[in-house]
Amino acid sequence: MRSVIDILDLSVDELEEMYRTAIDIEAHPEKYTRACEGKKLATLFFEPSTRTRMSFEAAMYELGGHVISVTGAGSSSAAKGESVADTAKTVSHYVDVIAMRHPKEGAAQVAADNASIPVINAGDGGHCHPTQTLADLLTIYKEKGGFDGLTVGLCGDLLYGRTVHSLIHALQRYKGVRFVAVSPTELRLPEYVKQGIDCVETASLEEALPSLDILYMTRIQRERFDDPAVYERLKDSYVLTPEKMELARPECRVLHPLPRVNEISVKVDDDPRACYFKQVKNGKLMRMALILKLLDEAERDPLPAAKPGVRTGKVCRNPRCICSVEQEPDFRFRTDAAGRLRCVYCEAVPE
Amino acid sequence: MRSVIDILDLSVDELEEMYRTAIDIEAHPEKYTRACEGKKLATLFFEPSTRTRMSFEAAMYELGGHVISVTGAGSSSAAKGESVADTAKTVSHYVDVIAMRHPKEGAAQVAADNASIPVINAGDGGHCHPTQTLADLLTIYKEKGGFDGLTVGLCGDLLYGRTVHSLIHALQRYKGVRFVAVSPTELRLPEYVKQGIDCVETASLEEALPSLDILYMTRIQRERFDDPAVYERLKDSYVLTPEKMELARPECRVLHPLPRVNEISVKVDDDPRACYFKQVKNGKLMRMALILKLLDEAERDPLPAAKPGVRTGKVCRNPRCICSVEQEPDFRFRTDAAGRLRCVYCEAVPE
Amino acid sequence: MRSVIDILDLSVDELEEMYRTAIDIEAHPEKYTRACEGKKLATLFFEPSTRTRMSFEAAMYELGGHVISVTGAGSSSAAKGESVADTAKTVSHYVDVIAMRHPKEGAAQVAADNASIPVINAGDGGHCHPTQTLADLLTIYKEKGGFDGLTVGLCGDLLYGRTVHSLIHALQRYKGVRFVAVSPTELRLPEYVKQGIDCVETASLEEALPSLDILYMTRIQRERFDDPAVYERLKDSYVLTPEKMELARPECRVLHPLPRVNEISVKVDDDPRACYFKQVKNGKLMRMALILKLLDEAERDPLPAAKPGVRTGKVCRNPRCICSVEQEPDFRFRTDAAGRLRCVYCEAVPE
Repeated sequence: MRSVIDILDLSVDELEEMYRTAIDIEAHPEKYTRACEGKKLATLFFEPSTRTRMSFEAAMYELGGHVISVTGAGSSSAAKGESVADTAKTVSHYVDVIAMRHPKEGAAQVAADNASIPVINAGDGGHCHPTQTLADLLTIYKEKGGFDGLTVGLCGDLLYGRTVHSLIHALQRYKGVRFVAVSPTELRLPEYVKQGIDCVETASLEEALPSLDILYMTRIQRERFDDPAVYERLKDSYVLTPEKMELARPECRVLHPLPRVNEISVKVDDDPRACYFKQVKNGKLMRMALILKLLDEAERDPLPAAKPGVRTGKVCRNPRCICSVEQEPDFRFRTDAAGRLRCVYCEAVPE
Repeated sequence: MRSVIDILDLSVDELEEMYRTAIDIEAHPEKYTRACEGKKLATLFFEPSTRTRMSFEAAMYELGGHVISVTGAGSSSAAKGESVADTAKTVSHYVDVIAMRHPKEGAAQVAADNASIPVINAGDGGHCHPTQTLADLLTIYKEKGGFDGLTVGLCGDLLYGRTVHSLIHALQRYKGVRFVAVSPTELRLPEYVKQGIDCVETASLEEALPSLDILYMTRIQRERFDDPAVYERLKDSYVLTPEKMELARPECRVLHPLPRVNEISVKVDDDPRACYFKQVKNGKLMRMALILKLLDEAERDPLPAAKPGVRTGKVCRNPRCICSVEQEPDFRFRTDAAGRLRCVYCEAVPE
Repeated sequence: MRSVIDILDLSVDELEEMYRTAIDIEAHPEKYTRACEGKKLATLFFEPSTRTRMSFEAAMYELGGHVISVTGAGSSSAAKGESVADTAKTVSHYVDVIAMRHPKEGAAQVAADNASIPVINAGDGGHCHPTQTLADLLTIYKEKGGFDGLTVGLCGDLLYGRTVHSLIHALQRYKGVRFVAVSPTELRLPEYVKQGIDCVETASLEEALPSLDILYMTRIQRERFDDPAVYERLKDSYVLTPEKMELARPECRVLHPLPRVNEISVKVDDDPRACYFKQVKNGKLMRMALILKLLDEAERDPLPAAKPGVRTGKVCRNPRCICSVEQEPDFRFRTDAAGRLRCVYCEAVPE
C-alpha cells in the first residue's frame, strides 16, 4: 500500500500511465462511474482550500464513491490537541483513502506512517502539493505531447512558490528541459532548487517570453516583502497582459495554479494559449487517476509501507515542521545525496 | 442553458408547470429518485444559511444526485481574493449545477455569466432570493388553488424584506391581487415596489387581519432602528398571537419565510391556518422541480445565455454591488421601463 | 418511533441485540451496504466534534444512505435565534434521522419532542453522550464476552466526565460489577453517581491497576482546577505508561473515549491490551446498528413518542439547560426515585 507525499513518489513511468488513464476518463467517463462504488474518501483539511477540496470531492463522486469532509483548523479534535498520528489511525476506520491538507510541513507523512489506508498529500505547509503538479504535468502533456526539450518559464514568487519547486523537480527527470526563472531579485529560486538543472534567471518577463514553450505564472504576495514600497514598485512587472502575450510564440501555453488575483489579466482568458482553466479539469482527472491507482494498490497489497528514514537520537526543531506540534513525535532522518541528514517530514537539516 | 437569478426569470406558465411537477414529486417521490443520478450540485455559500443549503442538498439527494458543499465567507479562494467569475469557471468543471449565496448584490449574475453550467441564486445580499419565493408561491397555490383575486397581507419589515419584495413582484403578474402592507412607518414598502400594484398601507395588524386571504409575516430586527426605544415601543405590535388570529377568517393562511424568533408565537403553530412549516417542504419540492428544469434545459441547449445589458462606459459604485469587490468587473447596464440605466447586477442607477 | 437521548433509553436486551447486529455488520458488511438506500441522516453539530460526526457519516454511508452535514455554533439559523424546536421541525422535512450535538443540556430532548423523525443525541452539553457509551459497551462485550462480575477502573476526571457517568449507569444494570474510581480528590465521582453501585475510590492509579478487568482512561483538563499549581502537581499521576501497564493483568483492557492528548503514552499503543483504537471501529458499528434500529422502528410505528414528564407551573433556571436559550420553552418535569421533581431536559431540581 502506498501514499503520495511528494511528486517524486511517482516514477516517470507511473505518471505516463496516469496521463493515459486521465485521458481515458475524459473520453469515456461512463466507464469509471462505478469504479469506487462503496469506497469513501476523507478530505481532512486542517487549512482551508476550497478549490483543492472540491476537486478531490468531485473526483471521488465521478468514480462512484462517497466523501466525508472535515474542514477548519479549529476542528474539534485538533483544537483539543489530538495528534495527526491519532487522527490518521482513527480516520482509517471511517474511509478508504485520505486527502489531507495541513499547515505544518510533513503532516501528510505522519498521517501516512500511521494510517492503515493510503494518504494523499493535498498540501503540507510550504513543503509539497503533489496533486497540483499532477494537474500541471497533465496539462503540459496534453498541450505538448511530452516534456523532452521544452523551455519552461516560471514567473512570480519563485522563492516561496511550492508549486514551482515541485514542477521543477518533476520536469528535471526529462531530457533537455530548460528553465527560465523570471522573478524580482527578492524572490529568486533558492539555490538548492537550481542544483542540477539548466536554468537562466531574469527579472524581465518581456525578455523571457519569446523563448518559452510553457509559461507558469504564480502570484506575488505583498506579505513577502519587508518593504511595501518595493512591492508597489515591481508588482506590475510580473502581471501578464494581452500586450505582453504578443511577445509569446503561438505554441506557448500559459499555466497558473489558481486562484489568480491580478497577475493574469482577464483579457488573456480568451487567448487560445491560456490553459489555466483547462488545468482545473486536468487536476480533477489526475486526482481520479491517483485515487484509482492507490486504492487498487491497497487492495492488492494492504500492508503499510515502511516508515521512511531512521531514528538517530537527533530532533527536528524547525518550527514549521509537524514535529513542533505533534505529541511524542517520531523523529526520523534520512541521508541526502550530499550525505547530510534531513528530517523525513520537513527535509530540514537538524542542528 | 439558463440560470435563475430573480423570480421574474420564470414566466407564469413555467411556474404553473413547476407547481405541477412539485405536486407530482410529493405524490410519487419514487419516480424521481434516480432523475439526477450521476449529477452533482455545488452549494457555494459565501454567507451562511443552514436552512436554504439543507433544502437544496436534500432536494438533490432526493433526485439521486450528489452534493459538494462550500460554506463560509472566509473560504480560502475568496479570502485570497479570487473573483466570483473565476470561481464560477472553476466550479463548472466539478459539478452540473450551482446554488450560490453571496453577501453582495449581483454575485449570482456574475456567476451565471461565467459558469458553463446553470446557476441558481440562493440569495444575493438584499437583492433577490427567488427560491424562497418559489416556496411561498407553491404554498399559496396548494392552499388557495391559484392567485387571482387574493388579498395578501405583508407584515413586518417591508422596507428591507427581500422576500416580501420578491413575492409582490411575482404576484403582481396575476389578476386582481390586492396587497395590504402592515408595518411600522419606519419600515414601509419602498415607493418603487408599490408602483403599479393595488396596495393599502396600515400600521395595525389587527385592522388588516379580517380581510386577508394570505398573511405573510416577517421578522423586524432591532438593528433596523436608529433609536432602540422606537423598536421597543412597537415590536409587540407585529407579533402574531392566537388572540390576533381570532380576527382572521377561517380561509386565511399564515406564511413566514423562517426562521422565526418571536414574531409568531409557538401557540399559533397548531392553528390549522398556520402554513410556515408546510412552506419548508414546499421549498424543497420547488427546488427539486427547478433543478430538474435547469438540468434538462442545459442538456437540450448547452450554450450559455447571453450576458445581460451592454457596456456603456459607466461604472457602478454601489458598495453593496458585487462590482465593488470583483477583479476587473464587467460593468453592464440595461434600460428600465422608465428609460433609466440600471446596473445589471444590483439594479442601482449609476451616478 | 423512538429517539435515543440517554444510554438508559435502550434496555439490556436491546443492547444485546445491537451487539449482535454490530458484530454481524463487521463480519458481513456487504449485507448492509444498501440497508439505508434512499435514506438521509442530518448531522446537526452546533458544537464541533470531528470524530463523532465522521463516525456517524461513515456509518450512514456504509449503510448506503446519504448525509447532510451542518456544523458550527454560528450556523446561521441558530445565530438568528431560531429555536431547536423549529430546527427539528424543519429538518424533519429534509432527512430521515438526525444526530445532534449541542452545548446545552437537553437540546436533543427538545429536538426529539418536535421532530417527526428519530433523533440521536450526539452529545448535549455535560449531560449525555449515549453513542460513546455504545462504543464502550461493544468494546467490553467483544473483549470480555459480557459484563457480569467485571472490575471496572475509571481514571481521570470523574467529576465532569460525561462518558464515565454514562458508562457507570449502563454497567450498573449487570450483576456483580465493581467500580474502582481513580482520580484526584478535586475530581472525584459525584455522590449521586455513586448511589447504588459497588465503588471504591483511590487517588492512586498504580494501586488500582492490578485488580482491573477494564481500565477506562479520561483526560484531566487544566481548566478544571482553580489553582494551576494543583494541576501541575498531579497531572502525571494519571498518565498511563508502559511502566504502569506492567502492574496490570494480561486480561486487563484499556479503553479511552479519545481524543487523547498525553494521558496515555503512545508507547502503550502497541500493548495488546490497548483497545482505544478498536473502540473507534466499534463506535461506527454501533452507530450503524442504532440507525438501522431507529429507522426500522420509525417505519413500523411513525407516531412520535409522547413528550416526557408534565407541566407543573415550575420553570427550570439552570443556565446550562436548553431552556435558558430556547424560545417559549415547554418546561416539563418528571419525578425521580427519591420523589423529587427534575427537569426532563437537564435533570436539575427546580428551585
